[in-house]
Amino acid sequence: MKKSILKKYAHLIACVGARVQKGQEVFISAELDQPEFVRMVAEECYRAGASKVTVDWHDQALDRLHIRHRSLKTLSTVPSYELERWKYQAEVLPCKIYLISDDPDGLAGVNIKKMTLSQQAKMKIIKPIRDQMEDKYQWCIAAVPGVAWAKKVFPHLSKSRAVEALWEAILTASRVTDDPVAAWDRHNADLKARCDYLNGLGIKELHYTAKNGTDFRVRLMDESIFEAGGEYTLGGNFFNPNIPSEEVFTSPKRGEAEGIVYSSRPLSYNGKLIDNFSIRFEDGRAVEVHAETGEDLLKEMIAMDEGASYLGECALVPYTSPIRESGILFYNTLFDENAACHLALGRGFGTCIRDFTKYTQDEMREMGLNDSVIHEDFMIGTPDLSITATTRDGKEIAIFRDGEWAF
Amino acid sequence: MKKSILKKYAHLIACVGARVQKGQEVFISAELDQPEFVRMVAEECYRAGASKVTVDWHDQALDRLHIRHRSLKTLSTVPSYELERWKYQAEVLPCKIYLISDDPDGLAGVNIKKMTLSQQAKMKIIKPIRDQMEDKYQWCIAAVPGVAWAKKVFPHLSKSRAVEALWEAILTASRVTDDPVAAWDRHNADLKARCDYLNGLGIKELHYTAKNGTDFRVRLMDESIFEAGGEYTLGGNFFNPNIPSEEVFTSPKRGEAEGIVYSSRPLSYNGKLIDNFSIRFEDGRAVEVHAETGEDLLKEMIAMDEGASYLGECALVPYTSPIRESGILFYNTLFDENAACHLALGRGFGTCIRDFTKYTQDEMREMGLNDSVIHEDFMIGTPDLSITATTRDGKEIAIFRDGEWAF
Repeated sequence: MKKSILKKYAHLIACVGARVQKGQEVFISAELDQPEFVRMVAEECYRAGASKVTVDWHDQALDRLHIRHRSLKTLSTVPSYELERWKYQAEVLPCKIYLISDDPDGLAGVNIKKMTLSQQAKMKIIKPIRDQMEDKYQWCIAAVPGVAWAKKVFPHLSKSRAVEALWEAILTASRVTDDPVAAWDRHNADLKARCDYLNGLGIKELHYTAKNGTDFRVRLMDESIFEAGGEYTLGGNFFNPNIPSEEVFTSPKRGEAEGIVYSSRPLSYNGKLIDNFSIRFEDGRAVEVHAETGEDLLKEMIAMDEGASYLGECALVPYTSPIRESGILFYNTLFDENAACHLALGRGFGTCIRDFTKYTQDEMREMGLNDSVIHEDFMIGTPDLSITATTRDGKEIAIFRDGEWAF
Repeated sequence: MKKSILKKYAHLIACVGARVQKGQEVFISAELDQPEFVRMVAEECYRAGASKVTVDWHDQALDRLHIRHRSLKTLSTVPSYELERWKYQAEVLPCKIYLISDDPDGLAGVNIKKMTLSQQAKMKIIKPIRDQMEDKYQWCIAAVPGVAWAKKVFPHLSKSRAVEALWEAILTASRVTDDPVAAWDRHNADLKARCDYLNGLGIKELHYTAKNGTDFRVRLMDESIFEAGGEYTLGGNFFNPNIPSEEVFTSPKRGEAEGIVYSSRPLSYNGKLIDNFSIRFEDGRAVEVHAETGEDLLKEMIAMDEGASYLGECALVPYTSPIRESGILFYNTLFDENAACHLALGRGFGTCIRDFTKYTQDEMREMGLNDSVIHEDFMIGTPDLSITATTRDGKEIAIFRDGEWAF
């Protein structure tokens, strides 16, 4: 991929994604796949005025080794210095940039039970500290191609061509045009207009139906608002947490969802696939799941903690989304979630509560915002999906018809 | 390079180099050049019973960015979590493995003054903690080829062939034969016999002369002993800190060196070369230096702290050492120091004091063991080098004649 294009993408991530402020610290998390691009992002952060950029290199292959060879006890331990690092971040409120490139099958063969148990144990220790920085710092997830990921998406191409093709697909989906900053300004404005319309309706309930059997109702909180594209930190810094981002989303009210939904795309969870599955909700809780592939994994996922079986997100994406129209299945939520309407199990978003800055985390949970260590999107959008809203004053309004916006 | 050979090398590093003990933690430090080999070493550590292996990935190119863009103040700061990590290591006493592959020219163009000042400031904070673990843990430095390093050593080869050629050179120098463990057992036994002879002589002073003008006398401490190959931690774990290692070395008495030495090979310091230099000593201190290349750098090096201008090591390597005979200039001290007799400015080795376990760090400094944040080897071995020892009972004994062992 041409260096000049990659520089634009690096700039987009630093200045539109994380929107690094002068004097701010930045932590970049990256796999080993694209070190040159990681350095470009670091340089763009410095150009934007970052006081210090720290890169945390990760290696999925090493993670596999650790899970195989370490005891559950050492895997579950958070050493003092790691805890101190979280505390430091909660105090300093750095930008966090995640450059993902994981192999979708990267954890195949791993003892998922052992991994899950150790993650639960560690999150229990880390989460209270991480919660202190919630909504206070800018962050951005963007993608770079890894060889294994590229070969999964383009199995018929050679390694180097597959990586090049995945670069192409990532850059197109991420609107890395001649002037990506302007493109994102326009895109954010479009998404905002849609949110404003939806937030003016006073929606109480969404009713999803599709020919595959989906028939599902979910209540929103009185305070639920739809969000899309960029968002603000409590301190007032605008940033774009996801590159790309096509969805218009909100967080529903915990405990008020009924009916069944059928998946329309596979879900890649911890490097393994869950496919052709359904989830039945009662009183907001996933009470029955079936899956042709990965049923046990799905069951483990919703048992991660209490909130893992409740919904944290309802996201609206038209079936004609450019990412779906590309025809590419990315095997990666950052992209695939922007190809179709989806729901998420697990943690809800504080920013989806009107005037969320007024409330504490506890108050938001009280209102019905779900909490969990997980937040896992799964796709339910089909070409025939209908969504009808019931407003608080009793009107029925078409939101989606035949998989498209109905307004 | 064939995977089966690399596995033997990885095993050598884990089990002969660091000699990982059952239940021990291991920290591996590596550049991004050879991730597959790094994983092999991690796996061999686990096979040896490591309870946890942590890999710290470094990137020299990012270091350059940091030095360019960060203020001296942020560069000089050790964040709380990094300090906590040193304290953790001082408590846990893990094995530390350093897989080096740095580009010898990797810091060209860097503001050396800024880098040096920030290193001094950080070392001041870290050193007291690092000192607590001195001589208590196993560590091993070994090399893997990076592209830039390989191209420096083999400029006429293509990148991939240069890397292959450097692998070959590293593996040969490191005695990675059919059975590297047995080869190292034999090698350690040979080196030990030489040390035993030297340590039986009761050497008081070494006198170096060569036709290039070198005429230099250095006193040893009464307690100085020659060491080579493997050594023991205070807890009794045998390990090989350097792979390869051909030298027989001791630490001299601080403050008692007179005369002038001329370099016989370039010194690569912080990624830059110092070449064709001489150092004149008075009362043990480097009082006058000249260099055709890098004189300023050499002056900065010996000004790092007070101990940086005193000697920490005298090492004996015959001119027919296999590493010199390979004819390859590695531009890397780990190899080049095993090609010729050398001295080191800076920190001396506690293990070069007889029964060092009986003494505290302070007591050893009292005896004349030098201390510094640096330890920089420089080569003085030539084909005509003579070294004559004067023993404590007044005898003169030939140690080296014409660049070779004289016994």
